[in-house]
Amino acid sequence: MNKISHIKRYQISKVYRRDNPGRGRYREFYQCDFDIAGHYDPLLPDAECLKIMYEILSELELGGFLIKVNDRRLLYGILATCGVPDDKFRTVSTVIDKMDKISWDKVRREMIEEKDLSPEIVDRLGEYIRLNGGLAVLEHLCNDSLVSQNTMAMEALSDLKLLHSYLEIFGVADKVTFDLGLARGLDYYTGVIYEAVLLRGPEEPHNVPDNDTDKIAGFGSIAAGGRYDDLVGMFDSKGRKVPCVGISIGIERILSMAERKAEESFKNIRTTETQVLVASAQPHYLEERMRLITALWSSGIKAEMLHKKNPKLLSQLQYCEKTGIPLVAIIGEQELRDGVVKLRDVTTREEVNIPREDLIKEIQKRTS
Amino acid sequence: MNKISHIKRYQISKVYRRDNPGRGRYREFYQCDFDIAGHYDPLLPDAECLKIMYEILSELELGGFLIKVNDRRLLYGILATCGVPDDKFRTVSTVIDKMDKISWDKVRREMIEEKDLSPEIVDRLGEYIRLNGGLAVLEHLCNDSLVSQNTMAMEALSDLKLLHSYLEIFGVADKVTFDLGLARGLDYYTGVIYEAVLLRGPEEPHNVPDNDTDKIAGFGSIAAGGRYDDLVGMFDSKGRKVPCVGISIGIERILSMAERKAEESFKNIRTTETQVLVASAQPHYLEERMRLITALWSSGIKAEMLHKKNPKLLSQLQYCEKTGIPLVAIIGEQELRDGVVKLRDVTTREEVNIPREDLIKEIQKRTS
Repeated sequence: MNKISHIKRYQISKVYRRDNPGRGRYREFYQCDFDIAGHYDPLLPDAECLKIMYEILSELELGGFLIKVNDRRLLYGILATCGVPDDKFRTVSTVIDKMDKISWDKVRREMIEEKDLSPEIVDRLGEYIRLNGGLAVLEHLCNDSLVSQNTMAMEALSDLKLLHSYLEIFGVADKVTFDLGLARGLDYYTGVIYEAVLLRGPEEPHNVPDNDTDKIAGFGSIAAGGRYDDLVGMFDSKGRKVPCVGISIGIERILSMAERKAEESFKNIRTTETQVLVASAQPHYLEERMRLITALWSSGIKAEMLHKKNPKLLSQLQYCEKTGIPLVAIIGEQELRDGVVKLRDVTTREEVNIPREDLIKEIQKRTS
Repeated sequence: MNKISHIKRYQISKVYRRDNPGRGRYREFYQCDFDIAGHYDPLLPDAECLKIMYEILSELELGGFLIKVNDRRLLYGILATCGVPDDKFRTVSTVIDKMDKISWDKVRREMIEEKDLSPEIVDRLGEYIRLNGGLAVLEHLCNDSLVSQNTMAMEALSDLKLLHSYLEIFGVADKVTFDLGLARGLDYYTGVIYEAVLLRGPEEPHNVPDNDTDKIAGFGSIAAGGRYDDLVGMFDSKGRKVPCVGISIGIERILSMAERKAEESFKNIRTTETQVLVASAQPHYLEERMRLITALWSSGIKAEMLHKKNPKLLSQLQYCEKTGIPLVAIIGEQELRDGVVKLRDVTTREEVNIPREDLIKEIQKRTS
């Protein structure tokens, strides 16, 4: 155990999970994480996490999204209030977690038949956990005769109201909805929890049956997180607590969505940052290509050449089309004699002879 | 096994090794890798790898460095030529690998006493494996009466000469030396191998005893790589070969060296990209700080604030000094009334009132 008690960090890297995920999900996958660890004033790190989640999802231009927010303490307070026994909190939460995938009727039946809750308890619970909305939902619960008697739930509600005020200042409250049915599977959360979902565009099939959240697309969550104040302390020999809050962005899911979108619009995905391919139409110009690429590299131009002594012009052009390289710098006998480079635009196929000394500027201009 | 037969990629990530490393080295560590896989014309990918190694080490400004180059086939050819039995190639190579750490006398003794080679064989071997230098060394070996009879060694020498001509075009031959004693521990290399070492500055202690490479600093290698044409095929069910060449940059070693350098020059290492800390000298300005930071963030300014409701000015300034944040944007009653922000330069402690509408431009100007 290291002695780090304060850190704010991000990581885009592989993560590993122990469970048995289904449907094209794996135990090893890439994830983009942002976490803040340390003792700070309440809800400030939480608000920053949600701000960052909002910014990332906005800039990725994936379409409309919604960030559902709840608090573990509020959920457990409501479970207690409705008469669910303590030892069933976890198992009942996993059923609640399915509410965005299956209908309330099915969730209700599972609670009664498989979790042995009485229909009265389940129906009372249903009145709460199907609530969602803005600040008004929090106010409604604060004034609820049952909930207002539960200390844990009231603490959570007070925190959520403070969080909401911070999110308003940060300009991200418009996409945040308090969703009392959000449970989040992971056991380690201790406070605020959240989950971002994409909203269904008008053209997409309606595959979430009878549900308040019927505008939510069937992708599942694309980002999620929450507060986990006890996790780090579990690994400290002296049990010192390091409160934490963090978000994870489901980068693989987002990439596969972006890929699908690009395919739908018949666009080639650019798989490279390379600005120019150094090519030749004639054989025996390997060394000249190497000289030119050395000059381009030393000016910071992102250039490539095929690792062939005498590649065909066609294969060089096809390589650009396949990978999305926008320009080709072509040299041959004539160009070398004239001190020029033939610069070809891969999309328009237009070719212009550029004096060798102007080439770098021209490539920078065209690719800026 | 995937079906990728051509790929050029880099990765900065954790890697894992099975052995038991000593001296502050771990089985899990960060490494920066660049590899080219696929069938290409000879030595072109190899030359690009060495070019990239050269560029990275130059740009990191670690001081003088040398890239030692050898070829597994040349080493084994020489071992055969000198009369080392086939079944001792690997074990003798591991002793050769120590030549940059211990003296030739000790290497010689280990070969005779522990590897059971005759003194004649070892002395003959010593004449070859202690050779190093430029193109002349390759020419010398090509004309050697013993080496020139070994097909494998001659293939390697012809490849190394071609590689040298490519490295000259790429402008990186000046830091490359052919070192016949470079063995590289890993079994999977099949052709060209290389290793970069830092050169000792005049002020550093001389801790490599009697050795041709007495200008080499005692850091060990900071980057290394080579060709491994058989490794991928081992994992393919049909045994299809994917020839590969790659480099690894020892990023942890480089970071710890950079850290040491910074400590020696009493410089604070800047551990953050943050340009400005949004601060207040008075209590009760949390919401104003949040409003200001929201504006800065939305203009792309890298800004931070302490996650405290009422932090002391001193702790806010100390935070900047510790992490290397260069600017502080301070607001309080007076500044808000006047529509200004007090911009403080952390190093000079100079403070200027900037009209709020000019703040973003001013920060961009000062941190560009």
